[in-house]
Amino acid sequence: MPVATLLPLTDVTACCAPITREPLGAHDAETLAKTLKALADPARLRLVSMVAAHDGQEACVCDLIEPLGLSQPTVSHHLKVLVDAGILSRDKRGVWAYYAIIPGALDALAAALTTP
Amino acid sequence: MPVATLLPLTDVTACCAPITREPLGAHDAETLAKTLKALADPARLRLVSMVAAHDGQEACVCDLIEPLGLSQPTVSHHLKVLVDAGILSRDKRGVWAYYAIIPGALDALAAALTTP
Repeated sequence: MPVATLLPLTDVTACCAPITREPLGAHDAETLAKTLKALADPARLRLVSMVAAHDGQEACVCDLIEPLGLSQPTVSHHLKVLVDAGILSRDKRGVWAYYAIIPGALDALAAALTTP
Repeated sequence: MPVATLLPLTDVTACCAPITREPLGAHDAETLAKTLKALADPARLRLVSMVAAHDGQEACVCDLIEPLGLSQPTVSHHLKVLVDAGILSRDKRGVWAYYAIIPGALDALAAALTTP
């Protein structure tokens, strides 16, 4: 597998200055919108929240299906969206993949939305 | 016009604790997802940013069309989404409606995404 596919498709940690500080350029607006769109779903917000609250701040799909009440394929799809957006990391160990929050990703979003 | 229509459809300022602090409930996840969805669009992010950067931190549609390069109906549609989401306020004065950022709305979103 080429290394590039292991990197998030968008890197919000390299973007953006607070949006209320100066007019946001078209490119930064695209990057920020993509990351926000990945988060802008109730199931995905709950997944991020459950991963963060889990022991060791990482969780496998097996830990997330029951509390969320969705099927494994649906949960796996949502997790993939969050990985592609650079919000979660994915580490395959044995039969399961373990997900953790990428340090700085949510804080970068928060910083972009914070007003002066 | 009933007063209720002047209030935002979602009130993110009444929601939510940081999503990484404790597992997010279904109701708070819906509220937060709705507000993030309203912001998760490049044109709408740029509109919020332009309103904040404008003189007096408010702007009318007439100020926003040219820099964004979109038609007035499209800009008005995006502004309505932001008003319905409780991110912008709308004040009709004379021929134009003036838009401003609702104090606390973006900070409430930022606070929900900030990690401990």
